[in-house]
Amino acid sequence: MTDGAPVPILHEDPVSGNCYKIRLTAALLGMPIERREYDIMKGETRTPAFLSGVNANGRIPVLQVGTRFLPESNAACWYLADSSALVPADRFDRADMLRWMFFEQYNHEPNVATLRFWMHFVGRDKLTEFQRVQVEPKWMAGTAALKLMDQHLAANDWFVGSAVTLADVALFAYTHVCEDSGCFHLADYPAVRRWIARVEGLPDFVAMKD
Amino acid sequence: MTDGAPVPILHEDPVSGNCYKIRLTAALLGMPIERREYDIMKGETRTPAFLSGVNANGRIPVLQVGTRFLPESNAACWYLADSSALVPADRFDRADMLRWMFFEQYNHEPNVATLRFWMHFVGRDKLTEFQRVQVEPKWMAGTAALKLMDQHLAANDWFVGSAVTLADVALFAYTHVCEDSGCFHLADYPAVRRWIARVEGLPDFVAMKD
Repeated sequence: MTDGAPVPILHEDPVSGNCYKIRLTAALLGMPIERREYDIMKGETRTPAFLSGVNANGRIPVLQVGTRFLPESNAACWYLADSSALVPADRFDRADMLRWMFFEQYNHEPNVATLRFWMHFVGRDKLTEFQRVQVEPKWMAGTAALKLMDQHLAANDWFVGSAVTLADVALFAYTHVCEDSGCFHLADYPAVRRWIARVEGLPDFVAMKD
Repeated sequence: MTDGAPVPILHEDPVSGNCYKIRLTAALLGMPIERREYDIMKGETRTPAFLSGVNANGRIPVLQVGTRFLPESNAACWYLADSSALVPADRFDRADMLRWMFFEQYNHEPNVATLRFWMHFVGRDKLTEFQRVQVEPKWMAGTAALKLMDQHLAANDWFVGSAVTLADVALFAYTHVCEDSGCFHLADYPAVRRWIARVEGLPDFVAMKD
């Protein structure tokens, strides 16, 4: 943060991987953030106070900086890490980092994270018919995303360049808990497992449940 | 581009909004790019030459810079526009621009663009059963995305700050052709319509079909 800038406030649910990305980014940067916790399952992000004061969409995470509010987990990570060592200095590498972050939101999160939410938090028996028909396609698409990651990590320690970047932070969040859904098995992705251990071994790493 | 850097090559299908974003970014920057065209409907991005030489995923767009390849449309736009006037100089605004670009890939493109592809290019009669059951949920989610854009644009000329940024470029691509699907009507979103005219009036604007 710039000297004198307000400490950012993270509006979050601690079980959300999207929220965890932002806490992990702040931890790796040694940057203080305040945390305001909400329970999605209890509708705490749908209250009038939340909708009028934080995010009219009722979605978290939202990063508050003074009087401004920033939704979208990967944008919040960028805000915290802008111009730090978590963002590559090389122009192509910087774009390549964003490439993996867009991949995460398009190909990974809607499958790997959604199945975790449905199967682990909502419960298979409580899914709607429309959710139920999506389980298999989301399992296939999530498997494809994990395979692509495994191929890349078989030849590279990190997603971009030779050190951790926001691409690793973004992809780590839901990958390391992908087994929660019962749909994915990390034993099938050995390079991903080694990379998970690499991330967990970083100085200043914080676990999702901390 | 830096002096001496190779002219980027865009591997694209000219009817794809994701590819058009990159052409529009280059045009607004007055930056030369080469174009290599493929027809998705004819499987031209699934040939062995494409899969081994451009993108093992068989997806376009891919931006080639020398011997390196960059998938993900919004990452390619970022590469071209990095440090230009299309990316805000203010730290929060820069993150807020990325916020809208992640919104585009998570909430807008999978609905507005996918319905355009299914209803306009594939044809309603040729949809699979699984695609057919998704038409209504995608119409609802696409409508929510367009409404959120319309609310924002009712109070702001541009998505971030007081000038065009990559957020506008990314969201313009599929919004201005959203009626192709037969599912969305721009008359329902008057602020979006005025913004479309604003984008089309920019110096150096190029149309999707140019």
